[in-house]
Amino acid sequence: MVATMNYSFEIEIKVRDYECDAQGIVNNANYQHYFEHARHEFLEAAGCSFGKMRQAGIEPVVARIEINYKNSLRGGDLFVCKLYLKREGIKFVFYQDIFRVSDGALCATGKVTTVCTQNGKLIKGDELADMLNGYITE
Amino acid sequence: MVATMNYSFEIEIKVRDYECDAQGIVNNANYQHYFEHARHEFLEAAGCSFGKMRQAGIEPVVARIEINYKNSLRGGDLFVCKLYLKREGIKFVFYQDIFRVSDGALCATGKVTTVCTQNGKLIKGDELADMLNGYITE
Amino acid sequence: MVATMNYSFEIEIKVRDYECDAQGIVNNANYQHYFEHARHEFLEAAGCSFGKMRQAGIEPVVARIEINYKNSLRGGDLFVCKLYLKREGIKFVFYQDIFRVSDGALCATGKVTTVCTQNGKLIKGDELADMLNGYITE
Amino acid sequence: MVATMNYSFEIEIKVRDYECDAQGIVNNANYQHYFEHARHEFLEAAGCSFGKMRQAGIEPVVARIEINYKNSLRGGDLFVCKLYLKREGIKFVFYQDIFRVSDGALCATGKVTTVCTQNGKLIKGDELADMLNGYITE
Repeated sequence: MVATMNYSFEIEIKVRDYECDAQGIVNNANYQHYFEHARHEFLEAAGCSFGKMRQAGIEPVVARIEINYKNSLRGGDLFVCKLYLKREGIKFVFYQDIFRVSDGALCATGKVTTVCTQNGKLIKGDELADMLNGYITE
Repeated sequence: MVATMNYSFEIEIKVRDYECDAQGIVNNANYQHYFEHARHEFLEAAGCSFGKMRQAGIEPVVARIEINYKNSLRGGDLFVCKLYLKREGIKFVFYQDIFRVSDGALCATGKVTTVCTQNGKLIKGDELADMLNGYITE
Repeated sequence: MVATMNYSFEIEIKVRDYECDAQGIVNNANYQHYFEHARHEFLEAAGCSFGKMRQAGIEPVVARIEINYKNSLRGGDLFVCKLYLKREGIKFVFYQDIFRVSDGALCATGKVTTVCTQNGKLIKGDELADMLNGYITE
Repeated sequence: MVATMNYSFEIEIKVRDYECDAQGIVNNANYQHYFEHARHEFLEAAGCSFGKMRQAGIEPVVARIEINYKNSLRGGDLFVCKLYLKREGIKFVFYQDIFRVSDGALCATGKVTTVCTQNGKLIKGDELADMLNGYITE
């Protein structure tokens, strides 16, 4: 099911040993770092860097994150972080999945809900949607 | 509503400057670190350290995490991380809230679902429940 | 020798489990985090917060760091980070030692050389020295 | 001078935004992470992974680290971490330099002194030297 999704972006990352904890596996919080890095690389690739958003006075904020942990990554593991983005009302929701390269195993799925603020107030985000035109999954 | 919960444990923590990112606020992933640290301190306080669980052959694993971000913590902020634990089937679910000390503002709420494994297989967790007797909210 | 030093500041910290790596000991880079946190707490205690320095147009910068690793800290270990500060020419040099509480073992020694900049240029730092009057070891 | 060194290994890395702190630059401790990651990738490339060392009963330990900070890296910066390794008595010393790709600026230089232990005792490290034959700069 996951495999048939049309992802908009993917990035390959290798686990760094310091990202593992005493259990010998990647610490749970680091998946959030991987997801964040993938989102920022996606936004940059989509021509919508944080600098550009800031110029437009838009400050994106993470409002909610959900992660399901399926299989643990270990030191040196290569993985691919894939994502697509949907607009749900004022929310920009990133669906992000992490697959281990060696065997294709799904390691984690994330759903990251972001909203846009301008001068500290929630906005609809039409301007961001325009910038991301073509990168938002219907 | 949150304020009337009966928490089983709380710990006061001060934000360290390196936990903030370029936006000047605590990076989202670090809340997961705070939640993890609070859970481990709770387990230790409940006489149920990781060492003890390991001796009993129990390996607890985080299966799912949900975090709602409400207000941002900043460098030097003092906050309290409160939690209570519920057993839902084979799941041990931690409900964790972070409050800023200066004004009592709710900064983040977390729901962390953990399960127990033994030799890599899911177990019901009755042994852990016994260890945590008195610390599980009905 | 270390024991007879007159430290200007100390702070007790407990190792958080996520700070350990797959070897089961605190990852080397985290000592630098501990040292940084102790310096910032010291500066705040000395009435010389980053905010205050910024108002005075002073931007302190770490130019060099040296750390000797003596004994490894482990998950849950309590330690004390002690420091004193010397002025050596335009340099403000922090001497920082980490001792494990359980047995007093010296775990790490750090020497952190900082300089002050103003508008991106090195300055002598007399203003900072005035602010820190009484907290600089001769 | 640095430019004419014969490095044995190099790896290109891109700064991740969460590695920056509130000053908008990469937090000092993260350079240590970059250096560690480069060393581990070097060892793996040299056919001398941590797994292999552990099988041979060798546990390498960082005894001392020195870092000079020259120019700050920022979010999204691409950099190259280059290194060479010298044997100095029982010490294996890594000389590591970080260059920003955009302008070739030297950002940080590191000298990381490691020693080998076996069952908790210092050893001469001849076995490791044999494994690394051809990768040690005279």
